[in-house]
Amino acid sequence: MPTSPHIPRLSLVGAGPGDPELITLKALRVLAEADVVLYDALVHPDLLTHARKGALCVFVGKRAGQPSWSQEHIQELSVTYAKRYGHVVRLKGGDPFVFGRGLEEIQYAAQHGIPSQVIPGISSALAVPASAGIPLTHRGLSESFWVVTGTTRAGTLSQDLALAAQSTATVVVLMGVQHLPEITRLFSQLRGGHTPAAILQNGTLPEARSLIATADTLVQSADAEGFSSPAILVFGEVVSSTQWVGLQTQLAAIA
Amino acid sequence: MPTSPHIPRLSLVGAGPGDPELITLKALRVLAEADVVLYDALVHPDLLTHARKGALCVFVGKRAGQPSWSQEHIQELSVTYAKRYGHVVRLKGGDPFVFGRGLEEIQYAAQHGIPSQVIPGISSALAVPASAGIPLTHRGLSESFWVVTGTTRAGTLSQDLALAAQSTATVVVLMGVQHLPEITRLFSQLRGGHTPAAILQNGTLPEARSLIATADTLVQSADAEGFSSPAILVFGEVVSSTQWVGLQTQLAAIA
Repeated sequence: MPTSPHIPRLSLVGAGPGDPELITLKALRVLAEADVVLYDALVHPDLLTHARKGALCVFVGKRAGQPSWSQEHIQELSVTYAKRYGHVVRLKGGDPFVFGRGLEEIQYAAQHGIPSQVIPGISSALAVPASAGIPLTHRGLSESFWVVTGTTRAGTLSQDLALAAQSTATVVVLMGVQHLPEITRLFSQLRGGHTPAAILQNGTLPEARSLIATADTLVQSADAEGFSSPAILVFGEVVSSTQWVGLQTQLAAIA
Repeated sequence: MPTSPHIPRLSLVGAGPGDPELITLKALRVLAEADVVLYDALVHPDLLTHARKGALCVFVGKRAGQPSWSQEHIQELSVTYAKRYGHVVRLKGGDPFVFGRGLEEIQYAAQHGIPSQVIPGISSALAVPASAGIPLTHRGLSESFWVVTGTTRAGTLSQDLALAAQSTATVVVLMGVQHLPEITRLFSQLRGGHTPAAILQNGTLPEARSLIATADTLVQSADAEGFSSPAILVFGEVVSSTQWVGLQTQLAAIA
């Protein structure tokens, strides 16, 4: 059980993209100071060994076959635990401020008089492509990258996606697998069917898988290879297979 | 001096956005295994203390008043040192694959038979806004973010910037300060003069400074407050000052 006396506070801590070594020193220090750790499904279980002995660790993610805890419930838990035990760490996969609903948790805590801090994490949007040898920018190929959610609050396709498809940016789509046919169709129509496209699953973990195709062929190839959610999609010239294959050889040689 | 025998190899390692605690465990492990460390100007000097005793540490960044080392020279150095001493770590500010020219260094090494790996770092593009209380995405305000360089290879404004200004994405501009008037004018024209805009300097470090304004007022305010390069620009509703001020109070309370 947590020790007392305590000062109620909340730390939103990024756990990184999957590989438990891709967490920062600062995140580990804060985790070791926590009285309570509320952790998501995407957090690697090894990371909890860095919490201090006696800290209360509570899983608040999606369980197989069960609905996930609601955002509201998690926010209420954070405040309740902070008032009761002191320092609550919300350990979230990736980065808390990148589709992590971090600001909502801070705002809710603030309404209840609980101060917060944010410790950034390595975002999957950047590190997963990197671990597959795909740089998000490369001179002469891409001067920018755009990170978009595939699924909006309303469950529909984000309107930003159509704009992104029209741009020249490298486009990274998170939470897009359930809309894969519509998303690839957008890119085929607006940027061309030969636009290099990748689907990346379990990035940065030993079980990582990746597939390189084009906007026209990604759906069929991903189905054939059994890719499913969650996965990350990347569209743009930086995905081009020549570079990628060359890199993979390099990476394999060193692994 | 490095030990022998050695196996020539290259690790591109992200040092993170500034705060020396915002480096990953994996980066530190690889750094401790290096025979040679080639480090950039934006790398915090404390990080070099993690290199093993006897590792050769070589500064390859910009010195005050001196031109920076050319990309080509750094690549040649990497290969020369790898062949002579073994494991070369290129320690780069931020993330090596985000405007870090990481792929160029890997390709050059590959041409000389040197295998490479990439260890991602926390990108300044994400962590610096976060440390100022600005989330890049927030439900109802922003469903995507676009990271653009302000200065292209040719020294001109990136064409992606005009597209980004027309989108609804949160836009993060790196290396944009020397084009600040043109960039803010684009946003004023294409997204409206009241678009919230921020300039962030030395983000994540004790000397961090930030200024919140609008597309119309950012140039004048930044001049008045003495902001200069390097700094990060953020445009979009997530910058809105109400949220930000509220957050800063929270953050100050915990610091």
